[in-house]
Amino acid sequence: MTKENKLQIIPLGGLGEIGKNMTIIRYNNQILIIDVGMAFPDDDMPGIDVVIPDMTYIMENKDLVLGVLITHGHEDHIGALPYLLRNLDVPVYGTRLALGIIQTKLNEAKLSNVRTVEIAPRDSVKLGVFKVEFINVSHSIPGAVGLAIHTPLGTVVHTGDFKLDHTPASGEMLDVHKFAELGDRGVLCLLSDSTNVERTGFTPSEKFVGQNIDEAFSSAEGRIIFASFASNVNRLQQAILAAHKYNRKVAVVGRSMVNVVDIASDLGYLDIPEDTLVEVDEIVNLPVEEVCILTTGSQGEPMSALTRMAQHDHRQISISPGDTVIISASPIPGNEKAVARNIDMLFKLGAKVIYEHISGMHVSGHASQEELKLMISMVKPRYFLPVHGEYRMLMKHADLAGELGIPKENTFIAEIGNVIEFTRHGARIADKVTSGRVLIDGLGIGDVGNIVLRDRKQLSQDGILIIVLTLNGANGSILSGPDIVTRGFVYVRESEPMLDEVKENTRRIMARCQQNGIREWASLKNQIRDGVGKQLYDKTKRRPMIIPIIQEVKGL
Amino acid sequence: MTKENKLQIIPLGGLGEIGKNMTIIRYNNQILIIDVGMAFPDDDMPGIDVVIPDMTYIMENKDLVLGVLITHGHEDHIGALPYLLRNLDVPVYGTRLALGIIQTKLNEAKLSNVRTVEIAPRDSVKLGVFKVEFINVSHSIPGAVGLAIHTPLGTVVHTGDFKLDHTPASGEMLDVHKFAELGDRGVLCLLSDSTNVERTGFTPSEKFVGQNIDEAFSSAEGRIIFASFASNVNRLQQAILAAHKYNRKVAVVGRSMVNVVDIASDLGYLDIPEDTLVEVDEIVNLPVEEVCILTTGSQGEPMSALTRMAQHDHRQISISPGDTVIISASPIPGNEKAVARNIDMLFKLGAKVIYEHISGMHVSGHASQEELKLMISMVKPRYFLPVHGEYRMLMKHADLAGELGIPKENTFIAEIGNVIEFTRHGARIADKVTSGRVLIDGLGIGDVGNIVLRDRKQLSQDGILIIVLTLNGANGSILSGPDIVTRGFVYVRESEPMLDEVKENTRRIMARCQQNGIREWASLKNQIRDGVGKQLYDKTKRRPMIIPIIQEVKGL
Repeated sequence: MTKENKLQIIPLGGLGEIGKNMTIIRYNNQILIIDVGMAFPDDDMPGIDVVIPDMTYIMENKDLVLGVLITHGHEDHIGALPYLLRNLDVPVYGTRLALGIIQTKLNEAKLSNVRTVEIAPRDSVKLGVFKVEFINVSHSIPGAVGLAIHTPLGTVVHTGDFKLDHTPASGEMLDVHKFAELGDRGVLCLLSDSTNVERTGFTPSEKFVGQNIDEAFSSAEGRIIFASFASNVNRLQQAILAAHKYNRKVAVVGRSMVNVVDIASDLGYLDIPEDTLVEVDEIVNLPVEEVCILTTGSQGEPMSALTRMAQHDHRQISISPGDTVIISASPIPGNEKAVARNIDMLFKLGAKVIYEHISGMHVSGHASQEELKLMISMVKPRYFLPVHGEYRMLMKHADLAGELGIPKENTFIAEIGNVIEFTRHGARIADKVTSGRVLIDGLGIGDVGNIVLRDRKQLSQDGILIIVLTLNGANGSILSGPDIVTRGFVYVRESEPMLDEVKENTRRIMARCQQNGIREWASLKNQIRDGVGKQLYDKTKRRPMIIPIIQEVKGL
Repeated sequence: MTKENKLQIIPLGGLGEIGKNMTIIRYNNQILIIDVGMAFPDDDMPGIDVVIPDMTYIMENKDLVLGVLITHGHEDHIGALPYLLRNLDVPVYGTRLALGIIQTKLNEAKLSNVRTVEIAPRDSVKLGVFKVEFINVSHSIPGAVGLAIHTPLGTVVHTGDFKLDHTPASGEMLDVHKFAELGDRGVLCLLSDSTNVERTGFTPSEKFVGQNIDEAFSSAEGRIIFASFASNVNRLQQAILAAHKYNRKVAVVGRSMVNVVDIASDLGYLDIPEDTLVEVDEIVNLPVEEVCILTTGSQGEPMSALTRMAQHDHRQISISPGDTVIISASPIPGNEKAVARNIDMLFKLGAKVIYEHISGMHVSGHASQEELKLMISMVKPRYFLPVHGEYRMLMKHADLAGELGIPKENTFIAEIGNVIEFTRHGARIADKVTSGRVLIDGLGIGDVGNIVLRDRKQLSQDGILIIVLTLNGANGSILSGPDIVTRGFVYVRESEPMLDEVKENTRRIMARCQQNGIREWASLKNQIRDGVGKQLYDKTKRRPMIIPIIQEVKGL
């Protein structure tokens, strides 16, 4: 009897969360990886730089991996690639722009010799038992594709991030014909982008923003400062064309913006009319009405160019009355306050600020409900796995599929690590593999865990109070101290009487311990921590972290 | 020659920010205070409980204050009252509900003997030279009023927080007749609520939510858990009536919800049909379809009842499949992620969650653009001072006023502390008084400032590393240590080799200092801080706070 053939889909990121998208497709002993994304840290991860998926499962099955398929060049789809490729030598498949952006990342990570394979929409690639087709989709970055992965047990379609844009700013619209053809031939399982499933109707076209950009450029009198995501090349394209149309030169500011403009124009994704681009230091020589500055900082990022301008702290550009600042992006959840602060500061500097809330200067790159329904209707999958979304979004997406006739038992609301297993007989969630988040802090990969984070949180709430004592090793008497050092708790200067009381209290506690014959340091420290903790809480209603440190001098 | 009569408006909070609303009206030597609100701390104020206005100006002019006028009982209008009334004995004027909520606050703060004066819409009160009229407005709490303050130099109208609700869930609609009458007679200056100035059109009526509540209640099969702001009494009223209509008993959960339901029903603002209210522990005896639970936690507050339920951590209520949870509130900016987390967890527990994004379960209590225009058109003020908003909102509100014919030079985009001064001859920003924010942390009022906050932020990013040494006072040699204690930086267990290197490095630095004759502790500490800081950054790319502590034993 031969073993039954199995197709497994194993999401390692992007389900029950936004970001760090990564999915495994496994057929018996052959593995494909779709996307290797990162996420930004939550509020409850202070000091963390980025979050990547736990890749234990891949490392345990290293030899089975045939390749990595990249749907597009956004950080939440490629950001963790260096961490994977450091430990795994497999080819990476992506469109020209995606590979261009990836190459920059690999260079920064000093990873050479990575094999990359450029693909284009409608290409197909044979990888082991799999045949992979790449399908053009519209998104907020060019060169975005969905995937059809043909396996002996059926075809798996992964939309990647997508929207249906009938009038994209450049390139072809979403390849409805291919999706429809796949649907006609029969699709086993559809994995579809749930990011905007809470929005009714259709997501507006990128061209809609183009019209508003044109209008704003046509009436602006002073300089125009245009902030957007660097990777939104079509948005930049529309701004550059408007600048050209209204006789403005374009300067590019901010590291990632400079990078992407370089890559995208080199690779033919960005069409910059001759003599349009100027260096930043040349703009001082131009009349204000001939200047357009493309900049990073649309999310209010603390170190970004636009934030520095708003804080009047940019080396080359100071905002003046008459400037028009266009923020062509929505705040990502969590960034609302930082973006609003920037807008306020820019207004205060005298700029006219045009921002998304009231301007039509941004549209999403993700499909709303009607587009999601269309995708399901075109692909007509037997099974449905909503991806790229928090739990409530996956639920909502499953509801939509239900309305379109996908039976509830054929829809999987899965968690990362779940193994969704298909055989000739059906599909089920069969298993759970190691999965989760790995926190990156500086050079440390995964070395910051719950205890360190808990300590950081406590430290940030009420600070720390350190009590240092040197004891005579011979008899336990105090040779020096108690000395108090405190940070983030109270102003030392104003709190000296209270800190003197803490010293007094510590001496009393030590004396009592002496009397009671308590000599072990652990007990002494506990007594001090409890006694001083109570004293401080009664006095201030705060709970600083209390660290008693005891040293001992022997042989006196 | 007599001194010229002056009317001054001095905002002490609520301009350039959301929250801590507080405004001074001064005529020569007589002062009225409008509202005394608090704000919630920003992300950059870790550990801070609440923020109140700097009241220095009032304390310097204590004897001139005639009274405090309260527009309504929300925390951003009354939250700082205890801090004011602890130092100032003046009467507080407010509607019955506002005073009811204030009384609870004063009791908690152990402030007795505060003089309160109950007023009702259309009442007028004489206070020194001022005549104050109270004007009914609609808002997300009953008993909300605007103010007309008649002074010898003209009438000042303050809208308070308001919306124009043609079909309020209870009470009268906004008193358009009174505002129109004031406009007819001539108004010197209008202060108007800018909170929703970025929204076009009209804010929907509270009745609209009522219809959606009714619909949800009519079709729910299991228990209903209804989360809202405790102070939104009309919202609670609609939920209670729907519960009664569909034969459900109501249990109230969460301290503030219990408080407000008590106060509002005692004072006649909340009409609870007989036999509707039950104790929480009685609901277990009821069939699920006869249960409705009113709860706090609509903002995802960590300790709130709904958050505990979502975390399966509530003492009395566990969410089960079949329960319907209605979140009848929008997330306040900054709370989006916490609210979303709750929704996800409730879904995971099997509940059906109806939340604002896709449900019509909430409407704002603040006027949108068309209502704001109507207010300006009715009141026809000579001068206009937009209040209650961040800078860009005040700007936008000023633009609206401009469209309605208020000349730019008669509109003041002011900051807190600005003195807007009116004389017979005109108006101008004449001066600036002490103003700002005072941070409350535990019992400390204003003792946490920039240095403490900066330390807390640094501690939260990369933690702390403490290096302790005991030296021989005679010759500076090391008697004990260096010992290392670290929190929030790395796992100690995994990092012992690195911490050993830090000890080694510290010994080397001390030896070098000995050789070079460096003995002052400040220099020794600087050398250690710099040397170890560099070592750790090279090794980890992190910058923990480094605290060298030196003790000395003398007379050996």
